[in-house]
Amino acid sequence: MARNTKLSRATVSAIVEELIDARLVREARVGASRGGRRPTILELNPDVGRVVGIDIGATHLIVVVADLRGRALAECELGFDIASGPEAGLDRVGRAVDEMLRQAGCLWESVVTVAVGVPGPVVSKLGMVVAPPIMPGWDGFPIQKYLRERWAKPVYVDNDADLGALGEWSYGAGKNESNLTYIKIGTGIGCGILLDGQIYRGVLGTAGEIGHVTISEDGPPCTCGNYGCLEAMAGGRAIAQRAQLAIKAGQRTALTAISAARELTARDVAEAAKEGDAVAQQLLSDAGRHIGSALASLINLLNPGLVLLGGGVVGAGDILLNSVRAAVAERSMRPSLQATRVDVGSLGRRSTVMGAVSLGLTHTFHSYVEAG
Amino acid sequence: MARNTKLSRATVSAIVEELIDARLVREARVGASRGGRRPTILELNPDVGRVVGIDIGATHLIVVVADLRGRALAECELGFDIASGPEAGLDRVGRAVDEMLRQAGCLWESVVTVAVGVPGPVVSKLGMVVAPPIMPGWDGFPIQKYLRERWAKPVYVDNDADLGALGEWSYGAGKNESNLTYIKIGTGIGCGILLDGQIYRGVLGTAGEIGHVTISEDGPPCTCGNYGCLEAMAGGRAIAQRAQLAIKAGQRTALTAISAARELTARDVAEAAKEGDAVAQQLLSDAGRHIGSALASLINLLNPGLVLLGGGVVGAGDILLNSVRAAVAERSMRPSLQATRVDVGSLGRRSTVMGAVSLGLTHTFHSYVEAG
Repeated sequence: MARNTKLSRATVSAIVEELIDARLVREARVGASRGGRRPTILELNPDVGRVVGIDIGATHLIVVVADLRGRALAECELGFDIASGPEAGLDRVGRAVDEMLRQAGCLWESVVTVAVGVPGPVVSKLGMVVAPPIMPGWDGFPIQKYLRERWAKPVYVDNDADLGALGEWSYGAGKNESNLTYIKIGTGIGCGILLDGQIYRGVLGTAGEIGHVTISEDGPPCTCGNYGCLEAMAGGRAIAQRAQLAIKAGQRTALTAISAARELTARDVAEAAKEGDAVAQQLLSDAGRHIGSALASLINLLNPGLVLLGGGVVGAGDILLNSVRAAVAERSMRPSLQATRVDVGSLGRRSTVMGAVSLGLTHTFHSYVEAG
Repeated sequence: MARNTKLSRATVSAIVEELIDARLVREARVGASRGGRRPTILELNPDVGRVVGIDIGATHLIVVVADLRGRALAECELGFDIASGPEAGLDRVGRAVDEMLRQAGCLWESVVTVAVGVPGPVVSKLGMVVAPPIMPGWDGFPIQKYLRERWAKPVYVDNDADLGALGEWSYGAGKNESNLTYIKIGTGIGCGILLDGQIYRGVLGTAGEIGHVTISEDGPPCTCGNYGCLEAMAGGRAIAQRAQLAIKAGQRTALTAISAARELTARDVAEAAKEGDAVAQQLLSDAGRHIGSALASLINLLNPGLVLLGGGVVGAGDILLNSVRAAVAERSMRPSLQATRVDVGSLGRRSTVMGAVSLGLTHTFHSYVEAG
């Protein structure tokens, strides 16, 4: 440890002693000697506290209770309606957390940190979303303050795609690449930028809004008030709307039957595409091309080592991914293109919630270190 | 010093002694006492060496010889033709540097570092441009190696807009904002991204290619091989081409007379616009709208504190700037927009060359510190 940190042996011993006193670290066993005194192997004590990770989506809610190694002890995914507003919404979140703690056999007293992902631009200092395009009623609501008061625990609020990037880097397909971008394609489209293993948030915290990058100056109107944004052309909601238009235009597709029974979703389009529906495949391929266009712009701007795709729509499989890759190859500059791998995240629907767990753990360790 | 760095007094004394030994720092005078022993005021010794900064543009060459405080001792701007290729081009650069050293009264022996900006994507590790859209003949030419061998000095090669950002941060309008983006609008359009006062280069070094961000998926072809890139719609070359088209279409403009005599440039358009030519004003306003579109995408992605515009075309004055600002206001998301000021750099045509001086100084001090 002294060698790796360039601290003196005495300093390292003092720090380790403090960590053991705080029960954060424990002596596991005595290792094999490599010449000198047989070393003591230390391990993190995962049971000294619990971290709660929460992913609030437009239409889903995921809660994980984890130990201090980030291992999930209890986990659930529920339906959610972001449009029910912050108070009703956070009440539902609170009940889900209580239930997961019960399932994990933990008391609230053992929880050291809670981290929450939300699908909108978060102003870090305020712990709230400002002018969020797909979170009606949440604009300016003090999410962090509200939950801190409710739970009397440290609570951190971050953008869902930012946490997705952190989750894939901590536990998923991004493990070996600390310069990575994670694109979340759900109802909206967001992006998390990781530079040197740290979430890049910009001066306010609102960086990463790739869904509102202009793809076509004269494109269709977007929920954010502008025109031709990526999200308005390729987000989950846009895909579902385009499917409706195809049906109205009389195109032959299996989606017609579904749309007669209920409102179409992007997931319906993805399912139909998987089963060979040509109209659905074309819709996904068009969306992929637009996403690839925006991604090429991001690659030209940021030259990341890895781009990972996630979010509900990516479950669509190879059609979307291939179309994204083709547009990226066509529109990225050669050197940046060669340096950037484009792939699908490995945590599936859990990227954001596991990023929340990772963020919670980071804050937990910082607070232990600062408290001394 | 001990207080600010959290190092011990003894360590600080030892470091200061080393710097004095290396003549990098000198004792200037004894200051006023604030209670204890009267302090010694130290100052950087600007005369212990010289730094050469070079800005190679598509059509210009700027060379500065500076002292170690970054003060220019000699400086010139010459015409340049990037298409003459690397060997003839770097030969011309070499002669200009020799001449400036002569004017500054310095020998080559006093030069400690040389830094060079070039208008293309630089792969940092190789010190060369790869697939540069507007540097015909330079693809893969080992600029850094070639100049190191020629001069037997440490030479650093970087993208011109990256150095523009560094220059404005070190000596210009960006002094108080370490999260800034500098957009250089010349023949091409490039961008330098500064995060926490450091140039952000990406994994290869090619980050910042905002000129090749897609503005319109079905737009005109670009020199990079793609379609609808910002540069193809609003770069200096595109502005000149559009002026030609306006003349051919029979629009009444003062540019017609100029174009009869020689090839039009974007600077001609800027001059005409300043003098009230309506066609020229429309051309600049259109270019500004496209640039503002791309900038809004960058602001939504990176949430910088400050965006500075530079490069020859920006000399056009308020017409371009106002049009850029209007498009940025229309297309940026509200929180990011409020956090980002859009302004013109204060170093004018010297942003890049002064960034080269700043980079050279940084490397000089690092090498002193590492050598001990």
